[in-house]
Amino acid sequence: MALEKITTSRSFGGVQGVYKHASAATGTDMSFSVYVPEHEAGARLPVVWYLSGLTCTHANVTEKGEFRRVCAERGLIFVAPDTSPRGEGVADDAAGAYDFGLGAGFYVDATQEPFVPHYRMWTYVTQELPALIAEQFPADMDRQSIMGHSMGGHGALTIGLSFPDRFRAVSAFSPIVAPSQVPWGQRALAGYLGDAVAAWRKHDAVALIEDGARVTDLLIDQGEADTFLTEQLRPHLLEEACAAAGILLTLRLQPGYDHSYYFISTFMADHLRWHADRLAIQKG
Amino acid sequence: MALEKITTSRSFGGVQGVYKHASAATGTDMSFSVYVPEHEAGARLPVVWYLSGLTCTHANVTEKGEFRRVCAERGLIFVAPDTSPRGEGVADDAAGAYDFGLGAGFYVDATQEPFVPHYRMWTYVTQELPALIAEQFPADMDRQSIMGHSMGGHGALTIGLSFPDRFRAVSAFSPIVAPSQVPWGQRALAGYLGDAVAAWRKHDAVALIEDGARVTDLLIDQGEADTFLTEQLRPHLLEEACAAAGILLTLRLQPGYDHSYYFISTFMADHLRWHADRLAIQKG
Repeated sequence: MALEKITTSRSFGGVQGVYKHASAATGTDMSFSVYVPEHEAGARLPVVWYLSGLTCTHANVTEKGEFRRVCAERGLIFVAPDTSPRGEGVADDAAGAYDFGLGAGFYVDATQEPFVPHYRMWTYVTQELPALIAEQFPADMDRQSIMGHSMGGHGALTIGLSFPDRFRAVSAFSPIVAPSQVPWGQRALAGYLGDAVAAWRKHDAVALIEDGARVTDLLIDQGEADTFLTEQLRPHLLEEACAAAGILLTLRLQPGYDHSYYFISTFMADHLRWHADRLAIQKG
Repeated sequence: MALEKITTSRSFGGVQGVYKHASAATGTDMSFSVYVPEHEAGARLPVVWYLSGLTCTHANVTEKGEFRRVCAERGLIFVAPDTSPRGEGVADDAAGAYDFGLGAGFYVDATQEPFVPHYRMWTYVTQELPALIAEQFPADMDRQSIMGHSMGGHGALTIGLSFPDRFRAVSAFSPIVAPSQVPWGQRALAGYLGDAVAAWRKHDAVALIEDGARVTDLLIDQGEADTFLTEQLRPHLLEEACAAAGILLTLRLQPGYDHSYYFISTFMADHLRWHADRLAIQKG
């Protein structure tokens, strides 16, 4: 698979890169960023996936996420994909809404026109991009974990719950935990997947858990001053589902924090250390 | 002095704010950011000034600088001004060059038309904004330090050398150390101050030291892969001036690092700790 380097810069001893490739999954060029810490020649490093929220590209967390220091300390590769296909011929919301269409792929494979041909972020993030990362970077694909923010928290939870053997740690910042039950998610899932709500359940973390999906534990940070908290995020729905399912959820409500990267960057180190601890466990 | 709050967000336990005010010095509205860490009621905290480089506003370091963690740990207020006046009626380079005019105030008070009325960044950064910070924030103005990047490194060095009793620490990332001797600086100093080079010397760190300005010590980080290194930055000129003057310069050439915030953020914690150590010293 061909990979085009957009930029690379040394940072915290490693290399922060931004790359572009022609995606078969989306039928578009896709950009993403990868941080590779300094490492011994021939070493293979664990991979932390970070899925971003509405309106974001790879750039938001890459510039504002403050993840490189701990990734360098703990030897973690950090991958940040884009949030939707982009470019000529890619459908967008007719009115240009921020929460649907471009920048709002919701980590699903669309079944509804006009989104079918390009909006295949599930396949892109779970199959195509991992294969590219495995091929092009010094990645140990037996040691992966996943995190995300808001819509990307939804993506991290649903993907983590769907591939429990692949991801050793799953965490999120202010995730959409039950898209079927909130306006952002209802809009997106109906738009991409149609009105038959049965098809939504595998893209809804709470529904996945209700339907039997399991991980050992989850870490979630949520700002209490987040303006989306009560209408769109509703972490208590995940709390109830985890309690019923026996999933150990660490849900930290952070007083005074909002939905921004000022919040994410504050707790990024905690999440990365939580991931690194789980990624360091030797498995037989 | 009236201050308009643009945004505030909790971050690393403190508050990252962006503010706007009507500046008497520049005759324009000016924006800046201030991070205030969590502190006891009534406490007064030391102030670190950060001056930004060409094309920047307050936002670049605020979003990408990764300074809040150490500021929170060490109890430092962090102030980031804009790099030039902006708005209707503010002259710009006729051809819209990135290195002169808007975003390129060079921390001088212009004496040349059409820049005279608004380009008064020296007065703004050394007089007006400090008075506003002292009035509006829990700042201990007896404990200040200054740092900057590139053009802002030039600003930090020239201001630090000009007010040695005000700033207890002076440091820079990839500074323009001798603007009189390099294209960026020659263009700007001629444009703002005119062709009489005698007027440039108090805005040139190397010339200031040659003319007798002194500080105890300086910390400078410079990326060796910085594309501006040999033509615009030339840190060895400062090294020679400091050696001749008996100023203890710690100049760290960092292999592989470029001019970007990926470089700055890597070494920001080192600089802040260096500042914090000097700001913590009790003076009689």
